[in-house]
Amino acid sequence: GYGRFGIMYNDNDSTTGDSSTDVTSRFRLQIDATAESDAGVVFGARTRIQQNNTDNGNDPAGSDLNGVRFFARTGGFEVGVGNIFGALESMPGQYPVDMGLTGLGYDYTAFNDRGDQYSSSGSGAAGANGLEVLYSAGDLAVHVSASDDNDRVAGYVAYTWSGWTFAVGGQDSDSAADTEWTASAGGSFGIADVTLAYADNGTGGDRVVLAARFDVGAATDVEVYVADNSDSTDSANDTGYGVDFNHDLGGGTSLRGGVVKQIDGDTVADMGVRFNF
Amino acid sequence: GYGRFGIMYNDNDSTTGDSSTDVTSRFRLQIDATAESDAGVVFGARTRIQQNNTDNGNDPAGSDLNGVRFFARTGGFEVGVGNIFGALESMPGQYPVDMGLTGLGYDYTAFNDRGDQYSSSGSGAAGANGLEVLYSAGDLAVHVSASDDNDRVAGYVAYTWSGWTFAVGGQDSDSAADTEWTASAGGSFGIADVTLAYADNGTGGDRVVLAARFDVGAATDVEVYVADNSDSTDSANDTGYGVDFNHDLGGGTSLRGGVVKQIDGDTVADMGVRFNF
Amino acid sequence: GYGRFGIMYNDNDSTTGDSSTDVTSRFRLQIDATAESDAGVVFGARTRIQQNNTDNGNDPAGSDLNGVRFFARTGGFEVGVGNIFGALESMPGQYPVDMGLTGLGYDYTAFNDRGDQYSSSGSGAAGANGLEVLYSAGDLAVHVSASDDNDRVAGYVAYTWSGWTFAVGGQDSDSAADTEWTASAGGSFGIADVTLAYADNGTGGDRVVLAARFDVGAATDVEVYVADNSDSTDSANDTGYGVDFNHDLGGGTSLRGGVVKQIDGDTVADMGVRFNF
Repeated sequence: GYGRFGIMYNDNDSTTGDSSTDVTSRFRLQIDATAESDAGVVFGARTRIQQNNTDNGNDPAGSDLNGVRFFARTGGFEVGVGNIFGALESMPGQYPVDMGLTGLGYDYTAFNDRGDQYSSSGSGAAGANGLEVLYSAGDLAVHVSASDDNDRVAGYVAYTWSGWTFAVGGQDSDSAADTEWTASAGGSFGIADVTLAYADNGTGGDRVVLAARFDVGAATDVEVYVADNSDSTDSANDTGYGVDFNHDLGGGTSLRGGVVKQIDGDTVADMGVRFNF
Repeated sequence: GYGRFGIMYNDNDSTTGDSSTDVTSRFRLQIDATAESDAGVVFGARTRIQQNNTDNGNDPAGSDLNGVRFFARTGGFEVGVGNIFGALESMPGQYPVDMGLTGLGYDYTAFNDRGDQYSSSGSGAAGANGLEVLYSAGDLAVHVSASDDNDRVAGYVAYTWSGWTFAVGGQDSDSAADTEWTASAGGSFGIADVTLAYADNGTGGDRVVLAARFDVGAATDVEVYVADNSDSTDSANDTGYGVDFNHDLGGGTSLRGGVVKQIDGDTVADMGVRFNF
Repeated sequence: GYGRFGIMYNDNDSTTGDSSTDVTSRFRLQIDATAESDAGVVFGARTRIQQNNTDNGNDPAGSDLNGVRFFARTGGFEVGVGNIFGALESMPGQYPVDMGLTGLGYDYTAFNDRGDQYSSSGSGAAGANGLEVLYSAGDLAVHVSASDDNDRVAGYVAYTWSGWTFAVGGQDSDSAADTEWTASAGGSFGIADVTLAYADNGTGGDRVVLAARFDVGAATDVEVYVADNSDSTDSANDTGYGVDFNHDLGGGTSLRGGVVKQIDGDTVADMGVRFNF
């Protein structure tokens, strides 16, 4: 697992509230339990005990086990049930960067969480017949997932060619607010790793994200992104952008921080330490 | 602990609902903490973090510690307090088989959970002054338990003679729905391990259970049972039966499944994988 | 962590209820997770999963993670955020003894919990911008803490001189019921370790505590205290006192018990076993 703690600033422009500067922290204990049959099939489960502490933002006391994801895996083939990862969430290019200490709103995730995904603090698709199949062979990766949440069925296909990864994903669902389809391309230009992603998010509008990561020293990188959302409403019809840095302190510890102008109009910033254990 | 996951079918005849086929899973993390004094007395605690995920059947998110059982043990003598095991629950012959992946209703438990027992997801007798004493010497085993739940006092005596185990248990309680007394006999006929059990469950009626386990290969066994319940009401005045298989896959993993006609009229079936970690 | 279990008696004079004798138990699993950067800064987190089981006193089922305390430490300097320890709680002399199995009411803590403190079952100052700085160098220790709970700012300075430790602490807060200032002196007279502590607890009155610990054998000690509280109300305008013993059983196990006349008028007693794991 990991721990992280630091300071978070939010000008709260989107809600016309006062700006706030607060301590932010997360503690995540990850439990990966596995067993291997004589035939080499690995059976396992992943669950987390996680707690987020943010002034006025979370009830900080107590955090249970989240929903559990179970799997059976052999070779490049894996079946998962429960709190599944989800095909769109797992698709290359959906998390091209990791802004600051906390993600700072994740505007750079093109499909905008409009599909099944592993929930770290809730049940996800556990209890909703979550089921997924993953397959990879060489440069090819395929992932199909389904659940009773909005009767979603989603999938992606990704292929890596000369260091560039191209992925296309689609989803069928009962909800007009769920993602329809999404595509991404990512690779390296030498000085930077660059990702371009697009998603048709139904009534959530279309989102285009361009993101890049630059190494600026032996232990430091800088990440930037621009995310444009266009839909028929004004609230989410805007452009957001952000910049951050990550500095490796060694021993699994790092100093991280960033500043983001969110699509909803808020300016948020954070800085702090993350340590793995 | 262990994880298990698979598919469960229920025709829901008892509630005249539609039949259902769902993913079922359980994750159990067991914590056994002990310390030993210089005089050789072992003090310890057992607690579990457990989560069951079944579509529409359980709120899948979050599972706390259950009630804790504490004990002090020396030689064949043990005192337990808190979320106690319970004498009737621990009596030989009450769990003669372990149907399918999930137990499939546990109709084959003669005392029908009408007494104190270790609760994996709740408090059990913790907080109700649960207290028990266990003693074993050679072929003799004695277990007495008590709690403020219905002011129960229960006990059993078991003796093993030439490979056959005979046990008699009784209970005094404030509730007419609690078990009055129960008896069991179990042993091996060579090709099968057989158990016969009876319980007078007060207003819950009388239950007779006959169960057997057959080894049908180096790594496979088959279990069968018949359970008859007779009381003054129609609902639980019926006979249930079931059959299952368990196939060892090695490395602490197994494939398990079964079909049961429950006493309440439902036909249920399950199949899946269990792995220990 | 540790487990403890035993019997607790309370005559319940303060509530004019019947006296009660019940099983009492606690299970505490402590998680200390740390990582060290290449420059030698240690980052870490402390959290607990704890459960108290007492008849009619606690809902025994289920205990979550408490609020998490995060820290960064280098040399004698430490910064903590979240569920902070709190300066007054950490000040030498506030916990001069540890009565019986359960603390038996902690009347001997002069500042009377009227300040920020690490909460084992709740959030403490996590989510309330809890922040603290600790510094120690040789015989000097300094601790300053602050949180949004009552806008508390508290601190203490302690100095050890020839085996005696003197400490003075103060607090500024929005609540008239919070501690104003407190002082303590503690050391050894050879046959006994003695502590004298005083606190001005605002509307909670003044409290003076005198406590001592005597070694009465290779593995046994006896503790005594007198605590006097004087305020303008009758309810807490009284004197309490207590005596206990702790007998080391080896291997991290001990037998403990005590009898206390509380300031509120109750007479309480406990006895049981504690084991560390």
